[in-house]
Amino acid sequence: MYATQYSLHPFLFVVSEGVEKMDDLRYLFNPASIAVVGVSQNPSKIGSIIYQRLVKNKSLGILKAEVYPVNPKISSLNGVKVYPSISEIKDNIDLVVIAIPAEAVPEILREAGEKKVKVAIIISGGFAESGRVDLDEILRKTIHDTGIHVVGPNTIGILDPYSGVDTFFLPRFKPMSDGRMAESLPDVTPGNVAVISQSGALSEIIMDCLKVSGIGIRAIVCVGNQVDLSIENFLKYFSIDPLTKVIAIYIEGVKDGRRFLNALIDASTKKPIIILKAGKTEIAGRAAYTHTASMVGRIEVYRGAFKQAGVIEVEDMEEMIDVVKAFSMMNPARGRKLFILTNAGGLAVISSDLATRYGLIVPNMPEEIREQLEELKNRRLIEQIVVIQNPLDLTAQGTSETFEEVYRIVASSKFFDLYLLMPSHQPPTVDDTVINRLFRVSKEYDCSAVVCEYGESEWSRHIRDKFDQLGIPSYPDVRRALRVLSALTAYRKPKNKRYEYPRETNKIKWLDYLEDGPLDYEDAVKLLNHYGLEAPKTLKIINEEELHNVNEKLSFPLVMKIFSRRITHKTDIGGVIIGLKTCSELTDAFRMLKKRVSEIGLEWEGVIIQEMVRGVELLLGSSYDLTFGPTVTFGIGGVFTEVLRDFSVRVAPVDPTDALEMINELKMKKILEGFRDLPSINLEKLAEKISEFSKITWENPSIRQLEINPLIALGDRFIAVDVRGLLSRTQHQP
Amino acid sequence: MYATQYSLHPFLFVVSEGVEKMDDLRYLFNPASIAVVGVSQNPSKIGSIIYQRLVKNKSLGILKAEVYPVNPKISSLNGVKVYPSISEIKDNIDLVVIAIPAEAVPEILREAGEKKVKVAIIISGGFAESGRVDLDEILRKTIHDTGIHVVGPNTIGILDPYSGVDTFFLPRFKPMSDGRMAESLPDVTPGNVAVISQSGALSEIIMDCLKVSGIGIRAIVCVGNQVDLSIENFLKYFSIDPLTKVIAIYIEGVKDGRRFLNALIDASTKKPIIILKAGKTEIAGRAAYTHTASMVGRIEVYRGAFKQAGVIEVEDMEEMIDVVKAFSMMNPARGRKLFILTNAGGLAVISSDLATRYGLIVPNMPEEIREQLEELKNRRLIEQIVVIQNPLDLTAQGTSETFEEVYRIVASSKFFDLYLLMPSHQPPTVDDTVINRLFRVSKEYDCSAVVCEYGESEWSRHIRDKFDQLGIPSYPDVRRALRVLSALTAYRKPKNKRYEYPRETNKIKWLDYLEDGPLDYEDAVKLLNHYGLEAPKTLKIINEEELHNVNEKLSFPLVMKIFSRRITHKTDIGGVIIGLKTCSELTDAFRMLKKRVSEIGLEWEGVIIQEMVRGVELLLGSSYDLTFGPTVTFGIGGVFTEVLRDFSVRVAPVDPTDALEMINELKMKKILEGFRDLPSINLEKLAEKISEFSKITWENPSIRQLEINPLIALGDRFIAVDVRGLLSRTQHQP
Repeated sequence: MYATQYSLHPFLFVVSEGVEKMDDLRYLFNPASIAVVGVSQNPSKIGSIIYQRLVKNKSLGILKAEVYPVNPKISSLNGVKVYPSISEIKDNIDLVVIAIPAEAVPEILREAGEKKVKVAIIISGGFAESGRVDLDEILRKTIHDTGIHVVGPNTIGILDPYSGVDTFFLPRFKPMSDGRMAESLPDVTPGNVAVISQSGALSEIIMDCLKVSGIGIRAIVCVGNQVDLSIENFLKYFSIDPLTKVIAIYIEGVKDGRRFLNALIDASTKKPIIILKAGKTEIAGRAAYTHTASMVGRIEVYRGAFKQAGVIEVEDMEEMIDVVKAFSMMNPARGRKLFILTNAGGLAVISSDLATRYGLIVPNMPEEIREQLEELKNRRLIEQIVVIQNPLDLTAQGTSETFEEVYRIVASSKFFDLYLLMPSHQPPTVDDTVINRLFRVSKEYDCSAVVCEYGESEWSRHIRDKFDQLGIPSYPDVRRALRVLSALTAYRKPKNKRYEYPRETNKIKWLDYLEDGPLDYEDAVKLLNHYGLEAPKTLKIINEEELHNVNEKLSFPLVMKIFSRRITHKTDIGGVIIGLKTCSELTDAFRMLKKRVSEIGLEWEGVIIQEMVRGVELLLGSSYDLTFGPTVTFGIGGVFTEVLRDFSVRVAPVDPTDALEMINELKMKKILEGFRDLPSINLEKLAEKISEFSKITWENPSIRQLEINPLIALGDRFIAVDVRGLLSRTQHQP
Repeated sequence: MYATQYSLHPFLFVVSEGVEKMDDLRYLFNPASIAVVGVSQNPSKIGSIIYQRLVKNKSLGILKAEVYPVNPKISSLNGVKVYPSISEIKDNIDLVVIAIPAEAVPEILREAGEKKVKVAIIISGGFAESGRVDLDEILRKTIHDTGIHVVGPNTIGILDPYSGVDTFFLPRFKPMSDGRMAESLPDVTPGNVAVISQSGALSEIIMDCLKVSGIGIRAIVCVGNQVDLSIENFLKYFSIDPLTKVIAIYIEGVKDGRRFLNALIDASTKKPIIILKAGKTEIAGRAAYTHTASMVGRIEVYRGAFKQAGVIEVEDMEEMIDVVKAFSMMNPARGRKLFILTNAGGLAVISSDLATRYGLIVPNMPEEIREQLEELKNRRLIEQIVVIQNPLDLTAQGTSETFEEVYRIVASSKFFDLYLLMPSHQPPTVDDTVINRLFRVSKEYDCSAVVCEYGESEWSRHIRDKFDQLGIPSYPDVRRALRVLSALTAYRKPKNKRYEYPRETNKIKWLDYLEDGPLDYEDAVKLLNHYGLEAPKTLKIINEEELHNVNEKLSFPLVMKIFSRRITHKTDIGGVIIGLKTCSELTDAFRMLKKRVSEIGLEWEGVIIQEMVRGVELLLGSSYDLTFGPTVTFGIGGVFTEVLRDFSVRVAPVDPTDALEMINELKMKKILEGFRDLPSINLEKLAEKISEFSKITWENPSIRQLEINPLIALGDRFIAVDVRGLLSRTQHQP
C-alpha cells in the first residue's frame, strides 16, 4: 500500500534544495579559479573556444578568476602550461568546465569532487537526451557521491557579463562567402535581466534580441539536462540576487510541477517573472472518462500554474523581449486605465481600438481634467479645433511644449494608470525637446508610460533610443506598445503560499475499500456531501411497485434517468426523461426506460428519480496532471466549455480568492451575472464551492478524474445534478 | 413619394465616375507641366517647399515636367521668373498645385479651369473639415462648372517616385537640438506598392516603414477631403496601372459604402488589396428595435464588405507593412498547409503553436516524404537523432546543404502550400550559402515561402536583406512571419459582381399602405412567406371560446404567447408558456396570460398559439447601415450572438455562396454540424434561406430593421418562430 501511494506521486522523492546549493552557486557566478577540461591544439574544439574566451575576458580585466587548461595529452598551449588533470593543479578550483566526450565525463567529475571543486558545468552532450540512460545514471551517482554541483550536461552553460564567466562557445564572428568575418552573436551589455533557458539556440536568439533592444543582461543560464542544478535553483538565486530586476524564462517542460510552481511563487513575490513556454496543446493520450479529462491539455495546466504564481506569460520571442525591456526599466503598473496622447489622429484611433483587445480600459476624459486642458486653448497651446478627449490627438499643430503641458495636467491628476505617448516627429512643430519634456513629467509623477514611434529614419531611431536611455521604453508599433502596457498590469505578487503535494491526512477512509474503476453514483454523491456539495433529492428505484409513494418523498416536476454503470452518456440513448408531473407519467416513464435498457441488451439496474432543478448549467471537474498532480477545472458547461474551450484550470487545491479569479477569467462570465431571464449567481458562494471541490482530489489522489456536470446554479444554491468519478491507484491512467 | 424614396438613399445621387476621370489621372501622375500657386520668398512656406522639391527632382532628371512658380506679389525667386497668375503662363498646364489660404482657392481654381488645366492638387485646409461648409460648396460648384479634377483639399497630395511629382511638404530633414540636421522622412524607392491614404500623418509613417522594409513604392496618394477625386478613382487607376502590383489603403470612413465596395471588387479581381480601417466599434445611436440593430456596429459592416470584396484586412501598421511586403514580392498562396523547417527546436515548437492561431494547418509529414527524408540519414545529411516530422528541427548539426536537400524533397512533393524557413545562423554548421540554396528550391518549385530570422547581428541582418533581395520576404519574428503567411492565403479574387443600390422593382406593394413603425406579426410572417421562409402554424385567439377547436387545427405540444405590439421581450414578463399538451392546459394558460396582461395594465390583444418546434436556435437579421444601406446578419442566437459576439455581417443581398461563407465564419459553427444530441443542419439549404432573407430589406428598403429570432433549424427545415420588423421611410432612424 505504501509503495502504491508513492508510485502515484513520483515527485515525492525529489530532494528539496538546501541552503548549501545556493551558497555553491556563488562559485558558479563568481569563481576564484576555473579549470577547463578539454582544451586542445585545435582552436575550433569547444574546450579551446571556451578557454580562449575566458583568457580573453581575463586579459580585458572582466574576469578575475585564474584559468587553468586541462588535457592529459598535451603539456602546453601557446606557451601556457596545460595540466594533465585537475588534481595536478595546486590551487583550489571553484569551477570546472567539462567539454569532452560523454563517456569520460563521470571520471573527471569524480576527480573534481575529490579536489573539492564546488561546481561543474558539463557542456558535453550524449547522456539521457541521446538515449544513454546508463551514462546518465553514473553521472547522477557521481554527483550524489561527491556532493559536487553540476550545470548540464548537454548545455552551452552560462554567460555572466559582470564576472566574465562565459562558456557560450558558439562563434561570435563567422566567415561569410566573400571571406569577410561578420558578427554572428553580439556581446551582451551588463544589466538587470536574468535569463534562464532550456534551449541553447533560444538563449542565443534572446541574447541577440536583448542586445539590439538596448537591454542589459545580468546573466544567461542554459540549464541543459538538469541532472543537478535546475531551473528552480536559478530562480531562487536570481530572486535574491541584488543585480537582478527581472527574470526571463524559456521552458519546454518541467518534471515536478509543484516544485516548479512553488519556486515560481517564491521568486515572483520578489521580482517579476516573464515566461515563454513552448509546447503544443496535447491531451497526452489520457483515457477520457470525463469531459474535463478529454478537454484540459498539459498547456492549460501550465497556464493555470503561471497565473497562480503571478507570472507573466508571453507567447513569442518578440513579446518576451518587449515585455522584458519594460520590466527592466519600470515597475509594474497600478491599473488598466490608459491615456493615449499623440499628434497623429490615425494612431489615436488604431491604438484605442487595439487597447481593448489587450484588456486595457480607455476611459472618457474626466470633466475636471478636460476643463484644465480646455484652458490651454486660451493660452494658444492647443488649437481650437482639437477635441479634448481620450485618446487625445493634438493634430500636426501640437508642439513639444503642448505635449509637455498636456501630459503634466493629465499625469498630475493621477486619474490614469497607464500612458501611451506617441509624439510623431514628422510635423515641423515637434522638435527633440519633446523627449526630455515628456521624461520630466513621467519622472515627476512616476508614470507607467511607454512610447510608440514608427519608422527607421534617423529621427525615429533617435527618439526611440533617447527614450530608452531615459528609462521610458519605446516601441516601433502600437500593438507591441499596448501588449507591453497590458503585461505591466498583469504582474501581481502572489500570495506567499506553497502548493503542497497531495495531502492524504484528510482522506476519506472508505475509498480504500473500493475497487479501481468508475465511482458509483451514490458513492460519488457521498463524497460530494462530505465536502459540502449538494446533490438533488434522489431516489433509486428498481421495481415498479416502489414508485407508488415517490410523490410523498419528492416534489414534482421530476426527472428519471436509467441507472447503469455501463452507460456513459445517458442522454444520447434517450435514457433521461424530464418534466414528469404526475404519478401516471412516472409509471409510463419507468416502463419506457426499462424497455429501452432491455432493447440495448443491458442488465437492468433500475432508475434514479430526482427533483428537477432549474438554473445555469456549470461544469466543475478535476483531473490528474502527470506534472502537477491534482488540478481543478471550472467552466460554464455544454458547448461553452467544449466548443468554445471557455474554461479555467488551476493546480489544486485553490482557495476562494483563486476560485473567484477562475470565474472572472471566463469569456462567457456575463452569463453568470444574470443574462436575460436567468438568475444572477452568488459568485462568492460559487468560489467557495469550487474551493471545496478542489480539495477532493488533492486529499484523495486515488480519484484520478472527478466531474460535476452539470452543476446547476440558482442564485446562491449549487446542485450537483450529475457526477462522475474514476478511482485508480496505478500510476498510469487506465 | 418619389422624393421620399430618394431621401432614403442619399447615395443614389452620386455621379458615377466616367472614363474621362481615369484619363485625367494621367495628367496627375505624369504631367508635362506643373504650376505651383503659393510660392513665396519664405522658403519654409508650404508652396515654396513643394516648388523647391519639384525643381530639385527636375534637376536630378526624375521629373520631366516644366515647373512654373505662381504668386502675384513677387516677380522672381532666386532669379527665376514668378508668374502673377496661371493665365499668364504661355504653356499648357496639366497640373496645378495650390497652397494658399482657403478663401482664395476657388478663384484660382476657376482660373485654372479657364486655362484648361486638367488636375489640381489643393493642399490648403480650411474647408468642410474646419466647419467652412460655405467654402466647400463654392469649391464643389467651381469643380462642377470648370470640369477640372481635384485632389484634396486638406491634403499633402501625392508622391510618385517614377515621375518625380511630389507634393509631400513635410521636412525630409529637421534640425536637432545639437544643431545637426537629421533625416526626418526618408526618400522612397520606386517599386510596385500603391498607397492610398485618408491621413497625411499615416502616409508619412507608412512611407518610412516601407522604406526600412526595403519595399519600393509605386505612388502614395493622400485623398484629403475628396471633394472630387476619391479613393474609388485611385483604386481604379492603380488596378489597371502596370507599375502597381499591390494596393495598400488606410481609411477612416467612406460616405457611399456601395460605391466603395464595388470599386474594391473591381480592383480586387485584378490585384491584392490590403486595408487598414481605423474606427471604433460604434452603434451610432441607432434605436435598437431588434437585437441585430443593437449588436452590429459600423466596423462589422465594413469587415463584411471587405470579405465580400476579397480584400485583406489588417489591424495595425506593422501588420500592414509586413503583409504589403509579402504581396509586393509574391503571389497569393494556394492553401493553408504549412511546412516548418528550422535548426532551432524551440522555434519549431513556438511557431507550430502559433500557426494554428493564425488559421494555418501544420499537417503530419506524409509517409512518402518521410521515407525520402529518412534516406538523408544514410547519406549522413541528417543526424540519426533527428525526428522526421513537421515541424522539422534539423538540430544544430543541420548544414546549409541539409537545409537545401530537405527543402527540395519536401517542395518537390507539392504536398504543402506554405513554407516557413528558419535557418538560424548561430551554429557553425550553417553558412551563408543557405540563402541561395533555399532560394533555388523556392524558385524551382514556385513555393510560397517566408523566412524568419531573429536578431540584429550583422549575420541576422545580412540573411534578412539577402532573402528580401531575392524576393523571399523575411521577418524578425515568427508571429509576424505566420501572420503574413495567413494573409497570403486570405486573398481570393471576388466574384465579379456589383452590389447594387436597393432595388425596389421587386418590392412588395402592400407595404406602401402600412404606417411607419413596428410590423404586425401577421404582416411580418406574410413578408417572410413571400420570400420562401416558413413560420410555424399559428392561430391568433382573442376570446377563450375560440380555444375549443384549436386541437383540430394544430398538433400538441403547443406554445402560447401574449400578442401585443407594445411588449418587446415577452419572455421577460412571463408572456410565453411552452409545452402545452392538452386542451385544459391551453385554457389554464390562456387565463394566466390574460391576467398577466391586465396586471401590467396593457390592452388585451389576444394570444398567438403555435406548434412547438425543436431544433437549433439561430438568428437572422437585417439592419440599415448609413454607409452601406441594407445589411444582413447571421448568428447562432442567444448568448452566442450577444455575449460572444459570434455573428457574421454582409452587405445585402448575398447569394448562397456568400451566405455559406457567413456560416463558416462563425466560431461556434460546430453546433450546426450536429453537436451532442442536436441534429445536423443542412448548411446549403440554410445558405439559401439566408440569401432569400437578405433580399427582403434590399428590395424593400423601407424596412429598416428585420429579425427572425429564433429561426429554429432542424435538419433541412427552418422555421421562423419569432419575427420583428420596423418600417420607416424617413432617412434618420426613429
